[in-house]
Amino acid sequence: MIETPYLLFLGDAPDQLAAKVAQGIKDWRPEFAVGQFRMEGCKADMRLPDMSLQEALDAGAKTLVIGVANRGGVISPEWRHVLAEALLAGFDLASGLHNLLRDEPELVEIAKAEGRLLHDVRIPSVKYPIANGKKRTGKRCLAVGTDCSVGKMYTALAIDAEMQKRGLKSTFRATGQTGILITGDGVPLDAVIADFMAGSIEYLTPDNDDDHWDLIEGQGSLFHASYSGVTLALVHGGQPDALILCHEPTRAHMRGLPDYTLPSLEELRDLSLTLARRVNPDVQVVGISVNTQHMSDDEANAYLAGLEAEFGLPAVDPFRHGAGKLVDALVAVT
Amino acid sequence: MIETPYLLFLGDAPDQLAAKVAQGIKDWRPEFAVGQFRMEGCKADMRLPDMSLQEALDAGAKTLVIGVANRGGVISPEWRHVLAEALLAGFDLASGLHNLLRDEPELVEIAKAEGRLLHDVRIPSVKYPIANGKKRTGKRCLAVGTDCSVGKMYTALAIDAEMQKRGLKSTFRATGQTGILITGDGVPLDAVIADFMAGSIEYLTPDNDDDHWDLIEGQGSLFHASYSGVTLALVHGGQPDALILCHEPTRAHMRGLPDYTLPSLEELRDLSLTLARRVNPDVQVVGISVNTQHMSDDEANAYLAGLEAEFGLPAVDPFRHGAGKLVDALVAVT
Repeated sequence: MIETPYLLFLGDAPDQLAAKVAQGIKDWRPEFAVGQFRMEGCKADMRLPDMSLQEALDAGAKTLVIGVANRGGVISPEWRHVLAEALLAGFDLASGLHNLLRDEPELVEIAKAEGRLLHDVRIPSVKYPIANGKKRTGKRCLAVGTDCSVGKMYTALAIDAEMQKRGLKSTFRATGQTGILITGDGVPLDAVIADFMAGSIEYLTPDNDDDHWDLIEGQGSLFHASYSGVTLALVHGGQPDALILCHEPTRAHMRGLPDYTLPSLEELRDLSLTLARRVNPDVQVVGISVNTQHMSDDEANAYLAGLEAEFGLPAVDPFRHGAGKLVDALVAVT
Repeated sequence: MIETPYLLFLGDAPDQLAAKVAQGIKDWRPEFAVGQFRMEGCKADMRLPDMSLQEALDAGAKTLVIGVANRGGVISPEWRHVLAEALLAGFDLASGLHNLLRDEPELVEIAKAEGRLLHDVRIPSVKYPIANGKKRTGKRCLAVGTDCSVGKMYTALAIDAEMQKRGLKSTFRATGQTGILITGDGVPLDAVIADFMAGSIEYLTPDNDDDHWDLIEGQGSLFHASYSGVTLALVHGGQPDALILCHEPTRAHMRGLPDYTLPSLEELRDLSLTLARRVNPDVQVVGISVNTQHMSDDEANAYLAGLEAEFGLPAVDPFRHGAGKLVDALVAVT
C-alpha cells in the first residue's frame, strides 16, 4: 500500500507520452495528485501546480511517484539527486521502472536512516497463496482482450469511475504497474511466480458485499503466445461474474508477434466463456469495449453499431462515449 | 546442468515412497546412478550398491543428489553433516527440497572454498526470454491432463525410453523438480516469473532435427483453477505437434480442490486443441494415457478399449502396457 496523496515526479520527460503514469494518476485519481515536480527540459505537463518538495509536503503529499519512463527505464544521475532530497525531506518513493529503487545504494541508505519506504511496484511485496478456487461473495468483472494493450485497463477504470458516479459499490483492482501506481495498491501479476499467479488474484479480490463490483484490470490475452498463461490465471483466479471483450480493430498483428493475426471477437467470447465457466458456471459476457482511436467518429459509430447487432451486446468506446452502457449491463447481472 | 553420474542420497527415509526422486532416477536414468548412500534407520532401498562417499567418487560419481523428501522438506542436522562431508570430498550437491541448499551458510561456505556447486532445482538458474512464438524446427509432444498428478511425467519418460529403444531421436524435456533431477537439466516452470513462462519453454525446446521429438513434461491442467496458467504457458511455449491426453479415471475431484470435478477427456481434447492451434495449426491429439493403478487388469483393459472405440485413438497405461502404441502414433505424425 502506497501512502497518498502524491507529488508527481515528471523529471526531464522528453514528451507528454513519456509521462503516461502521471497522466493516468491525473486522469483517474486527481485527488491523489497535489502537484507536479518538473526538472529542467521537462516537456510534459499535467496541468497541475508546479511545486517544490517542501511546497508539496506542506500541501499534504506523502509519496513522490516517478510518473515518467525514460529510455531504458533507468534512474538517471540527475533524478537520483532529486530522489535523495525527497527522501531526506520526508517523502516515500514509488516507481514502476525496470531499474529498481532498491538497487540504488544511496537511496536505500537514506531511506533506512530516515525511516522512509521505497516502493518498487514491479516486484511483489506479498507472499501470495496458492489459489483454492473457493467461491467468493461479491461480484467481479474482468476485461479480456483479443490482444495486449487494447484498452483493458482504461475500460476497467472507466467502469469504476462511472459506478462511483452513480453511487454504486465498486473497486478497481490493479494488476499492472501503472494501475498500481494510479490506485496505490494491487498485484504486479507479470512479476509473480508462476505457481502463485491465480492465488494472487484471489488475494486481490476477496469476499465482499453482494452488490459490490471488483473491476479487475486485465493483462495480456488468452491468444497471445507470450503472455496467455498470465491471462488464464486472471480468469481462473478472478472468478468473474461478468466478462467484457476488448478489441482494437485496426491492428494488423498481435503486439510483438508479427506472425500472429488477432482472433475474432467470437473466438475471444467463446474461449473466455469456456475457461471462465470452470470457476463460475454463471459467468456472462456483458459487453464489448473497443479502442477506436484510429477511426473517425462515423467509422467508430458504424463499427460499434455493427457489433451490437451481431453480438446482441452493448458495444462502446469508453474513451469516446463513456462506460455508461457497460455499467448498465453490469447492474443487470443478478 | 547437473554433472552426472550421481550418488543417490537416501538419508533416513522413513519409507520407499519418501525416496520418489531417487526411484525416478533409478527407473529412468539407471546409468546416472552409481550407488546409494543410506544413513542409520533408512527404510528405502533402490537396490543399488551401498557406497561410502569415497567409494562413489572412485566409481566416477560427480554429484550427490538428495533423492529423498522428509517431512516439511527441511535439511535435517544429521543430513547437513553428510552433505558437508560430501562437498569436502569433491561432490557437487543437487536438491529439489523447498528448503534450499543455498540457505545453509555452512554448505555455502564449504562449496565456495572447495569450488563445488550447489544445485537447488526449485529455483531457475537462467534468465529466460519473453516468448516470441516463432515456428521452430523439429517435433514436439506435450502431455496434457484432466488434472495434476495423473501421470504426465511418467508418460513422457516412457515415450522417450521407447523411442530411444527404437533408435529414434528424442529428448525428455523436464519442467519440474523431479524431472530435472532425473535428467540433470530442465526448467522449474512453477518457479518461473509469470512473464517468462512461455519463453522458458521455448528456451527448453529449441530448433532441432526435423525427425527429432521433444517429449515435454506436462504441468498442472488447463482445468485446474490453481495452476491452469502454468499449463497454458506450456501449450503456447511448447508449440506442440502432438498432444497426449492423460487421465486418472477414479479420482473424485481435482487435486487439492474438493469443490471441482474433473473435466471429461472430450473437454480436455477440445480445449487443448483450440489453444494449441494458436501456435501450431497442424497440432493433433495422437493418443490417451491412463493411470489405471486403482483398477484391476480386466477393468483397465475394458476401460482402455472403450476409450479407443470412442475417440479413435490409441489408449494405454504406459506403466502396465508400455508406451509402444503412443510411439507408433507419434511416428505416424508427419
